[in-house]
Amino acid sequence: MDKERLKNQYEVFKKKAYIIIYGTNTPLGKLFDIILLQLIIISVLMVMLETVEGVNQRIHGLLVFMEWVITIFFTMEYILRIITNRHPYRYIFSLYGIIDLIALLPMYLSFITPSTKAISVVRALRLLRVFRILDLVSFMNQGKELKNALYNSRNKIIIFTYFVLVICVLLGSVMYVVESSESGFTSIPRSIYWCIVTMTTVGYGDIAPQTALGQIISAFIMILGYGIIAVPTGIVTAEYTRMKTQRRICRHCNYQNQPESRYCSQCGNELKEPITNASEK
Amino acid sequence: MDKERLKNQYEVFKKKAYIIIYGTNTPLGKLFDIILLQLIIISVLMVMLETVEGVNQRIHGLLVFMEWVITIFFTMEYILRIITNRHPYRYIFSLYGIIDLIALLPMYLSFITPSTKAISVVRALRLLRVFRILDLVSFMNQGKELKNALYNSRNKIIIFTYFVLVICVLLGSVMYVVESSESGFTSIPRSIYWCIVTMTTVGYGDIAPQTALGQIISAFIMILGYGIIAVPTGIVTAEYTRMKTQRRICRHCNYQNQPESRYCSQCGNELKEPITNASEK
Amino acid sequence: MDKERLKNQYEVFKKKAYIIIYGTNTPLGKLFDIILLQLIIISVLMVMLETVEGVNQRIHGLLVFMEWVITIFFTMEYILRIITNRHPYRYIFSLYGIIDLIALLPMYLSFITPSTKAISVVRALRLLRVFRILDLVSFMNQGKELKNALYNSRNKIIIFTYFVLVICVLLGSVMYVVESSESGFTSIPRSIYWCIVTMTTVGYGDIAPQTALGQIISAFIMILGYGIIAVPTGIVTAEYTRMKTQRRICRHCNYQNQPESRYCSQCGNELKEPITNASEK
Amino acid sequence: MDKERLKNQYEVFKKKAYIIIYGTNTPLGKLFDIILLQLIIISVLMVMLETVEGVNQRIHGLLVFMEWVITIFFTMEYILRIITNRHPYRYIFSLYGIIDLIALLPMYLSFITPSTKAISVVRALRLLRVFRILDLVSFMNQGKELKNALYNSRNKIIIFTYFVLVICVLLGSVMYVVESSESGFTSIPRSIYWCIVTMTTVGYGDIAPQTALGQIISAFIMILGYGIIAVPTGIVTAEYTRMKTQRRICRHCNYQNQPESRYCSQCGNELKEPITNASEK
Repeated sequence: MDKERLKNQYEVFKKKAYIIIYGTNTPLGKLFDIILLQLIIISVLMVMLETVEGVNQRIHGLLVFMEWVITIFFTMEYILRIITNRHPYRYIFSLYGIIDLIALLPMYLSFITPSTKAISVVRALRLLRVFRILDLVSFMNQGKELKNALYNSRNKIIIFTYFVLVICVLLGSVMYVVESSESGFTSIPRSIYWCIVTMTTVGYGDIAPQTALGQIISAFIMILGYGIIAVPTGIVTAEYTRMKTQRRICRHCNYQNQPESRYCSQCGNELKEPITNASEK
Repeated sequence: MDKERLKNQYEVFKKKAYIIIYGTNTPLGKLFDIILLQLIIISVLMVMLETVEGVNQRIHGLLVFMEWVITIFFTMEYILRIITNRHPYRYIFSLYGIIDLIALLPMYLSFITPSTKAISVVRALRLLRVFRILDLVSFMNQGKELKNALYNSRNKIIIFTYFVLVICVLLGSVMYVVESSESGFTSIPRSIYWCIVTMTTVGYGDIAPQTALGQIISAFIMILGYGIIAVPTGIVTAEYTRMKTQRRICRHCNYQNQPESRYCSQCGNELKEPITNASEK
Repeated sequence: MDKERLKNQYEVFKKKAYIIIYGTNTPLGKLFDIILLQLIIISVLMVMLETVEGVNQRIHGLLVFMEWVITIFFTMEYILRIITNRHPYRYIFSLYGIIDLIALLPMYLSFITPSTKAISVVRALRLLRVFRILDLVSFMNQGKELKNALYNSRNKIIIFTYFVLVICVLLGSVMYVVESSESGFTSIPRSIYWCIVTMTTVGYGDIAPQTALGQIISAFIMILGYGIIAVPTGIVTAEYTRMKTQRRICRHCNYQNQPESRYCSQCGNELKEPITNASEK
Repeated sequence: MDKERLKNQYEVFKKKAYIIIYGTNTPLGKLFDIILLQLIIISVLMVMLETVEGVNQRIHGLLVFMEWVITIFFTMEYILRIITNRHPYRYIFSLYGIIDLIALLPMYLSFITPSTKAISVVRALRLLRVFRILDLVSFMNQGKELKNALYNSRNKIIIFTYFVLVICVLLGSVMYVVESSESGFTSIPRSIYWCIVTMTTVGYGDIAPQTALGQIISAFIMILGYGIIAVPTGIVTAEYTRMKTQRRICRHCNYQNQPESRYCSQCGNELKEPITNASEK
C-alpha cells in the first residue's frame, strides 16, 4: 500500500519535474530556464577567469568551490532530465544531451588527470542552449526567417566560399614566389593564410609584402576582396527580401498569388481572400 | 505699480527667451541654435586640445580662459532653460537636461579636486544635442526612416550579435587551447577579444596566431566573419526596402495602391483612404 | 588679300582644332582623347617614379626630359583649348580649366624654387579628366545611375557619417580615460583617431588597448562598427533598387504609374501606354 | 581480320573512355571526376607542404614519390583526353587544356633545371577545374545566377574600381607630402599602396600616419572607404534582385504576370506566352 503511494507520488513528481525542466510555459518552467541560463553564463565566466593569471591567484579557492557547486547542479539537472523523460535515450543522444554530458565531464576528469585545460573549454558549448531557451520564448519567428534565408542561399554561399578559397590558394602561391621569406612568406600555406587575412580585409600586419610587385598584387587582392563582399550580401539580401513578400492565397488551389492579383494565376478562380505574409504560411 | 510692470516685463522676457531657446522657427531661435552648436563643438575641441601635450603647454592660459567663458555661457543657458520653462522639472529630468547638467559639473568640480580628467570627457555628450537641433531643422524624415528600420530589425540584430558573441566565446576558447601564450593568447578573455578583433575584420595584429592549426582556425574565423557581414546588411536592407512600400488600399476592389495614388489603378475609383504600411495589413 | 586668306585659314584651323580637342565623335577627336589620357597616366606615373629612391637615381635624366616633353605638350594643349574656344573664359574658369592650369604650374615653378615636391602632386588631379572622357564615350548611363543613387541618399549618408563621428568622439574620449598613455592613447584626438580606425574595421594596430576594460570597450566598438556597415549599404541598395523600378506613364498627366496599373492613379484615365524604365525618363 | 577487330575494339575503348573522362552522367564518369578532384587537391597540398621547412625535411622522399605518381596519372589523363576526343585541337587549345598542360610541365622541367619553385605554383591552377566538375553536377543554376549578376554589373564595378583607384592616387600623393618618410611613406607608390590598404579597411599597420594632419586625412579615408563599400553591394544586390523578377506578359491586357502563372491575374485569361526577363521589356 505504502509502496504504491510512494510510487504514485514519484510518478507525480516526475511529471511535475518534467514540466518544469522541459516546459517553458509555466512560471516555474520559465524561472528554471532563467536560472539555468544564468548558471551557464556564470560557469563560462568562471572558466574564463581561471585562465587570467592575476585573478586566478587571488580567488582560486572561490573559483574551485563555485565550479563544484555549479557542476553538482548541472549533474543533478542532467540526471533529472534523464529520469523524468519518457524517452530518456532520445534526450541522451540528442545534440543538447550530448553537449550537457560533455560539459560535465571535465570537472570529474580533473580527479584523474590534473590538466584538463584543453577540455574545460567544452563548457562554453552549453552557451548554445541559450538559443533553445530563447527560441522557445519569443524570438522564434525572427530566428526562423534568418535561418531560412541562410538555408536557402547555402549553395551559393558554399560556391562563393570555395571560389574565395581557390583564389586565395592561387594568389597565395604567386605571392610566395614573388616575396622573399624575409617578409614572412616562408611557405605556401603561410602565404595562403596571408592571402585570406588580406582578402577578408582583416590585415594583421604580421606578414606584409615588401617588394613593389608584391604590394601591387596585394593592392589587387584587397580591391578584389573589398568588391566581392558585395556577393554574399547580395545573395542573402535578395533571399531575405523575397521571403518577406506578401501573398494572396487562392481558396481553391491554395496557390500563393501576388498581392495585386485578382484572379488566381494557377486555376483562374477569382480571388477574394485577404493578403497575408508569405512567411506566415 | 512698478512691481507689477516689472513682473509683466519679466513674464514677457520669459516668453521671448523661451521662444528663442526652445523654439527653432524664428530667426533668433535659429541663430541661438547655431551659436549653441558652435560653442558645443568649440568646447569639445578645447577638451581635446588640452590633452595634447605640445598644444596644452603653449596655450594653456587661453584654453582655461576660453573654457570658463563657455562654461559660464552654458551655465546661463541652463538657468534660462529652467526659468523660462513652464514645467522646469520636465526639462531637468529629461535626457538633454541631465546631459546639460553633467556637462557643466566638471569645470566647477575642478575647484575642489584638481584632476577632473576622467569627468571632463562627459562634455562630449553634449554633441548629442546636435541630433535634436538637426532633427528640428530639416533632416527629420530621413532620420526617422533610418531609426524605424533599425528599430524594426532590433530583435534580429540582437540575436545576430548574441550569435556572433557565442561563436567568439567558443572559437576564442579553442584558440586559447591551440595557441601558446607566447603568441599573445595568455587567457581565454584575451583569446575571445582576439576572436572579436578577427571576426569583425579589424585585425590589429597585436595578437596573431603562430601555429599552423591556429592559422587554419583563424582563416576559418575570417571567412566566417567576412560572410556573416551579409546578415545584418540583409536584415536592414530588407527592412528599409519594405518600409518604403507603403500602400493605399481601395475600398472597392481592395487593391493596394501606391501611397501617392489618387485614383485606384485597378478600378479607377477615387481614393479617400488613409495610407497604411504594407506590413500592417 | 593675302592677309584675309590667312585669317580665313586660321579660322578654319580653329574650327577643326576645336572639333578635335573638345569633340569626341570624330575619329581624330577620339584619337586625341586617347593620346591625352595616356599622356596623363604617363605623367602621373613619372611623378610617382621620381619619388622612388632607386629609380630616380638611375633614370633621373630620362624622367626630367620626359616631364618637359609632356609639360610642353600639355601647355600647347592648354593654349589651343583657349584659342579655339569661342568662350575662352568659360573654359579657363571651369573646373577642368583650373585643374589643367594647376597641373602645368609645378614644372614652370621649378625654375624659381627648386623643391616643388609639395605641388607636383597636383598633377594627379588631371586623372579626374578621365571621368569626363569616359563619360562621353560609353559608360555614361552607368555612371549616372550610381551618381543619382548616391545623390538621392546624400542626406542619410551625411547624418550617418555625423552619427559615426559623434560616437567616435564619445568612445574615443572614454578610451582616453580608461587606457594609459603607454598603450598609445596619449591624447583625446589620438584616441578618437584610434576609435575611427577600429570602428571602420581598418585596425592598424599601432595603437591597441592593453587593459581588460579597454579591450571590452574595443570589442563593443568593433561589433558596433561591424553592424552599422549595414546602414549605408541598406540606404544605397534601397535607393538603387527603387530607381530601377519600371513605370507606366499616363498620356494625359504624365504621371509615372506602377507597371501593373490599368487606370492612372492621378487623373483616373485608362492607361494604354507601354511600360518603360523609370530611369529612362 | 584481326587488325580490323583490334581497330574496332580500340574504337569502342575510345568511346567508353570518352564517356568516362568527359561525361558526368554515368557512375564511372562521376567516379572518375571525384578521383580526379581528389588527386588535384592532393597534388596542390603536396606542393604546399614541400615549401614548409620542417615537413619537407622529414618526408621529402615520400613527397617526391607521390608527386611523380600523380604527375604520371595526370599525363595519362592528358593523353587520353587528346586521343579519345574527336576534335583533339579543340581540347588542347581550350582553357582547361592549356591549364592541364601547364600543370604537367613543372615536374618534367625539373629534370633540366633544378629550381622550378616559380613554376610549380601553376599546378594550383588545376583547382579551377573543380568549377567545371561542380558546374556539371548540380550547382549549375546557382553559379549561373551569380555569374550573370556579376556580368550585368561589370561596367559599374569597373567604373567604381577606377574611381577608387583615382581617389587612392590623389590621397596617396597628398599623404606623401603630409607625412615624412619616417612613418613609412617613402615614395608616392608606397603611399598609394598604403591608401589602398586603408580604404579597403585592411589596415596592416606596417605604414601608419604619425602626424596630426596625416591622421585626420586617414580618418577621412577610412570613413570614405567604410561608406563606399555600400556601392558595390548596392549594385550587385539590385542586379541580383532584378534578375529574380522574370515576367510572363498577358496577350490580352499586357499585364506582367509572375513566371509561374498559368492564368493572368488581372483578366483571368489563360497564359501561353513565354517567360521573359523584366528588363528585356
